[in-house]
Amino acid sequence: MSQPTYVIGHQQPDTDTICSALAYARLKQAQGERVVPARAGELNPETQFVLDQWDCDSPTLLTDASGERLILVDHNEYSQTVEGARNAEIAEIIDHHRIGDVMTSNPIRFRNEPVGSTATILTELFDDADEPLSEDTAGLLLSGLLSDTVVLRSPTTTDTDRAVAKRLASVADVDYEAYGKRLLQQKSKLGEKAPRELVLGDFKEYEIGTHHVGIGQVETVEPAVALDRRDAVLEAMDELVVERTYDLLLVLITDLLEEQSELLVAGDQTRGLSTAFDIEIHERTATLPGVLSRKKQVVPPLETALDSPA
Amino acid sequence: MSQPTYVIGHQQPDTDTICSALAYARLKQAQGERVVPARAGELNPETQFVLDQWDCDSPTLLTDASGERLILVDHNEYSQTVEGARNAEIAEIIDHHRIGDVMTSNPIRFRNEPVGSTATILTELFDDADEPLSEDTAGLLLSGLLSDTVVLRSPTTTDTDRAVAKRLASVADVDYEAYGKRLLQQKSKLGEKAPRELVLGDFKEYEIGTHHVGIGQVETVEPAVALDRRDAVLEAMDELVVERTYDLLLVLITDLLEEQSELLVAGDQTRGLSTAFDIEIHERTATLPGVLSRKKQVVPPLETALDSPA
Ligand SMILES: [Mn+2]
Ligand SMILES: [Mn+2]
Repeated sequence: MSQPTYVIGHQQPDTDTICSALAYARLKQAQGERVVPARAGELNPETQFVLDQWDCDSPTLLTDASGERLILVDHNEYSQTVEGARNAEIAEIIDHHRIGDVMTSNPIRFRNEPVGSTATILTELFDDADEPLSEDTAGLLLSGLLSDTVVLRSPTTTDTDRAVAKRLASVADVDYEAYGKRLLQQKSKLGEKAPRELVLGDFKEYEIGTHHVGIGQVETVEPAVALDRRDAVLEAMDELVVERTYDLLLVLITDLLEEQSELLVAGDQTRGLSTAFDIEIHERTATLPGVLSRKKQVVPPLETALDSPA
Repeated sequence: MSQPTYVIGHQQPDTDTICSALAYARLKQAQGERVVPARAGELNPETQFVLDQWDCDSPTLLTDASGERLILVDHNEYSQTVEGARNAEIAEIIDHHRIGDVMTSNPIRFRNEPVGSTATILTELFDDADEPLSEDTAGLLLSGLLSDTVVLRSPTTTDTDRAVAKRLASVADVDYEAYGKRLLQQKSKLGEKAPRELVLGDFKEYEIGTHHVGIGQVETVEPAVALDRRDAVLEAMDELVVERTYDLLLVLITDLLEEQSELLVAGDQTRGLSTAFDIEIHERTATLPGVLSRKKQVVPPLETALDSPA
C-alpha cells in the first residue's frame, strides 16, 4: 500500500487548523486520494468542544514528520510546522498568513488568500471541486471560520468570510451568532491554568530579521482572570526567554468584547515597540486599542520595530 | 492619484509571462483597480508575433522596481524578478513553478498550481471573478498556454490545461493545433543569432543549495541550426561562467518535434550530472530523451546532483 499523505496544521493547534485538516482530508478522500488528517499537538478546549459537537474523531497525533508526505494547512513557515517537516515532502499548502520560508523543488499547489480563516478557502476548494458539503463538514468549517475571525468581528474578516459563514451556517443548520458565542465561551475557559500554560496555550514563533520572537495570545471575554495574575505571567515569560533564547516575547491578553488587547513584554529587543505601535509601555504592559489579530495587527509593525537602528 | 500596481513576469520574458501580465492587468482593471501591465526585458520574436496577432500593445518596460507595488506572475523567486524587486512591495503572486524565496510581512494572495502555464490559472481567475473573456484576451491566454506547453505536448501539461485550451480556442475563434504550429515556427526562428544570444534568449538563474546556476533553453524545430555551432555556443557559455560566476551553466537545445534535448555543460559543478540524469556526457554534451521541460525535468534532478558528496 502506498504511503499516506498527512494534512496537518500548525503547532499549538487551534480550531481553524484542526477543522481545516479534517475537512481537506475529507475532500481528498472523496476524490480517491489516500490522505489522513493529523495534528502537531494537543487540542484546546474550544476545539474539543467543536469535535464533540460535530461528532468527529480527533486527527492523528504526528510527533515526527521526517520522511513523510505533508499537506500544510493554516501555516506556511517552518518555525510553526510539526517536528521533522524540513525532512518531509511538502506536497501542497493552503493558508491565509504571510508568505513564509517553505521552498520546494517541484511545482506544487500553494493557495494563500488574505481572508479570515483557512476554513474559508477550504469551502471554496469544495466548490471548485464540485464536491457537496455535508452538514458536519460545514459545521467544522464554520467553527474554524468563526473561531479565527472572533465571530466575524476581527479586522481580518473579509466580505468573502461573511458570505461563506452564512452559507456554512445554513448547510450546518445553526444560527452562527448563537453558535459563535458558545465557541467564544469555550475559548475563554482560562480556569485554573498555570501562568506558563496561559502564555503557551496559543503561541507562535517567528524569525523576524535576525530575531527569534515568540507571541502568545489569550483570547477571552474575561481578561481580568489573566490580568489579575500579571506578575506571575511576566515571570513565566522571563523564564521562557531564557529557556528558548527569545530576543522578544510578547503576550496579548485580548478582550473579545471590548475589542482591545493588553500587551505584556519580555526579552531584550523591546526598543522600537513604543514607536511601532504608538503606545506607552508602563511596567512592561501597554494597551492596544482595537487590536484583535496577532497576524494582521502585531506581526507587521514588529518587522518595523525590529528593523529600527540601535 | 494613488500609486499604480505593476503586474510583471520574469526576466527574459516569454509568451506566458507577457500574456499573463496583460490578461491579469485587464482583469484587475475591469474590477476597478489601478493596475499596469509591465515587463522586465525585451520581447522575443514569438511574443511579438502574438501581440501583433491580437492587436495588443507591449507592456511597459520596468527597469527598476524599487519602491513600487508589484504583482508577480509566472515566477516567484528573487533571482528571476525585475531589478529592485527586493525593495518593492509584493502584493500578489500567480505562478506555476516550484515555491521560491519570496517572503512577505502581510498575508497576500499567492496562487501557485502545478499546471502547464500561468495563463491556465488566469483563465480560472476570470471564471472565479465572473468576468467574461473577450476574444483577444482569450487569444493572449491561449498563446501563453500553448507556448509553455509546446502545444500541449510538454510533460507539464495537465487535463486542466487541455480543457482550458479548448475553451480559450473556442472564445478566440482559432484552431489551436494550427495556431500552435505557427507559434512554434516563430519560436524556432534562431536565424543569425550570435551564440551568446542563443544561450541568453530564454535563460533562468537559480540558487540551488549554495550553488549559483544558470540554465538556458533553445526550443526549436530545427536543432541543427544551433548544434552546428556547438563549439561557439560552448565558448560563449565559458565566458558567461567567468563573467557571472556560475558554478554550473547548462544549455538545453530542445527539439520540439523529436521531443528530446541536447544538453551542453559549462562550469565547475558538473560532477553528479551523469548520475542525476542517468546519461553519459561526452565532450560536454549529452542527449536527454523525452526532456522538454526545464522546470519539471531538469531543475529537480539538479538538486540531487548538486547535493552529492565531493
Ligand atoms: Mn487560521
Ligand atoms: Mn510559464
